[in-house]
Amino acid sequence: MTLFQQQMDCCLNRIEADLASRMDRLPKGLQAQVVEAMKYSLLGGGKRIRALLVLEFCRICGGDPEQALPFAAAIEMVHAYSLIHDDLPCMDDDDLRRGKPSCHIAFGEAIALLAGDALLTLAFETAADADLAPRQTLRAVRELSHAAGTAGMIGGQVLDIENLADDLDTLQTMCAMKTGALIRVAARLGCIAAGAGEEQIRLADRYGQKMGLAFQITDDILDITGDAAVLGKPVGSDAGNQKTTFTTLLPLETADALAQELLEESLAAVEEMTGSGEFIVQLTHMLATRRR
Amino acid sequence: MTLFQQQMDCCLNRIEADLASRMDRLPKGLQAQVVEAMKYSLLGGGKRIRALLVLEFCRICGGDPEQALPFAAAIEMVHAYSLIHDDLPCMDDDDLRRGKPSCHIAFGEAIALLAGDALLTLAFETAADADLAPRQTLRAVRELSHAAGTAGMIGGQVLDIENLADDLDTLQTMCAMKTGALIRVAARLGCIAAGAGEEQIRLADRYGQKMGLAFQITDDILDITGDAAVLGKPVGSDAGNQKTTFTTLLPLETADALAQELLEESLAAVEEMTGSGEFIVQLTHMLATRRR
Repeated sequence: MTLFQQQMDCCLNRIEADLASRMDRLPKGLQAQVVEAMKYSLLGGGKRIRALLVLEFCRICGGDPEQALPFAAAIEMVHAYSLIHDDLPCMDDDDLRRGKPSCHIAFGEAIALLAGDALLTLAFETAADADLAPRQTLRAVRELSHAAGTAGMIGGQVLDIENLADDLDTLQTMCAMKTGALIRVAARLGCIAAGAGEEQIRLADRYGQKMGLAFQITDDILDITGDAAVLGKPVGSDAGNQKTTFTTLLPLETADALAQELLEESLAAVEEMTGSGEFIVQLTHMLATRRR
Repeated sequence: MTLFQQQMDCCLNRIEADLASRMDRLPKGLQAQVVEAMKYSLLGGGKRIRALLVLEFCRICGGDPEQALPFAAAIEMVHAYSLIHDDLPCMDDDDLRRGKPSCHIAFGEAIALLAGDALLTLAFETAADADLAPRQTLRAVRELSHAAGTAGMIGGQVLDIENLADDLDTLQTMCAMKTGALIRVAARLGCIAAGAGEEQIRLADRYGQKMGLAFQITDDILDITGDAAVLGKPVGSDAGNQKTTFTTLLPLETADALAQELLEESLAAVEEMTGSGEFIVQLTHMLATRRR
């Protein structure tokens, strides 16, 4: 096992244990069903990219990743809620998520709706409970809600469900909002947890911006070339949905080259932040070139 | 027009103007549709009870109500989101809200779902943006998310949709969570905005607890004895849904007496806080005895 894999496993174990213990602290009364649905979706796998970025950017900026855990957990909760609501019949109507029945298939639509609402709500309680200077914590709450709102993730979802992204520019805007905003804010919140200065936050933001897009392009490529068993979801679903993606607008090699370019730009930003960013470099390569 | 009515109009105008200006600051890009849906539901009437309580408890505690406006707006956003999601087909499936088509009837289910999500998200950005000491603001964010989550509002919604409240005790628990938690936190946040001490917050909490329940019992009584045109919704809807309410479990006079008792208890708490609480006394009477 390489050093990178060891570090990765160590981070992931810490993230999973932290999320599980937060779920264990939820009420166990008559509302147990919604808590079960929250656990099912939050703890049911996932790559934890956003949480990893929070912890790693905190470390890069000289902070203790333990202190960034509440922000990492909060972002994973926002991500999990967005997937539950995205899968609902009135949205993408997906029965399968990570190789398991979607939340609404397992728990019914009403409980799935409420489990998503509850994860979003809990995300802000979790972030606001961080053991940092109140000013830093408050900034993190504001940035997280802004990134998750109409100027960010939800805005991107609107463009997506209304099929507004039919050219490359709009598609990039949509991705920057729908998936990019949360990845960017993950990198930023890691810096904020470390008490980093504005220049570090700016570079982390740039990293997140470039890497988020590279990640999305890779996703689209994998939807064509990937292996359903590895992905945990059917391939070709984008084509089936007649959705515009980077691979419907661009030849495969062009999309691939664009992802590579963005990957290099993201690494250039992170290299300005640190001389020894071996972990983040390998993590970024892994995320942006999953097919190789 | 009585002094009370003048004060009420003045507060309501301030609240409406504040909410409208917050909506005007939202993005006007391709995601405009979700912003329209948010405006439709947030600005489309409503009694603003929760916002009024925030401002009034701030004033009672010697604070400037202007400083409490972000908390008032945040709570109204949480309330508006909960109504949008409650009305969805997978929940109560209500086509009408305040005499107008529900959000999902006017905008479609997907946009209504996202508009609810976006209002909840914006609530935390709004609260976190209050111009108070960071420690106070952070406490407000934590208390708001806790009240809106599985231990509060969402927990109550689960008991409601699963029809778990079939005895008086559970019905009171359900109401304390579903509507009570947000009313309590409104009173608490007003105190927090004023920088009030723990004893004031405790009394405000007690007020909210009693008044919230009185308010709910009144709602159930109005569903039987009320006038659809005044209520803006059909009467008898609870009976049609075969829902357990205070009026299915108790004779009308007993329910009425219980509401009266709770009303007096809520006023006793507020009288401990202030010698000259004329406005809150009249407001409470109005809310808890709307049928007279």
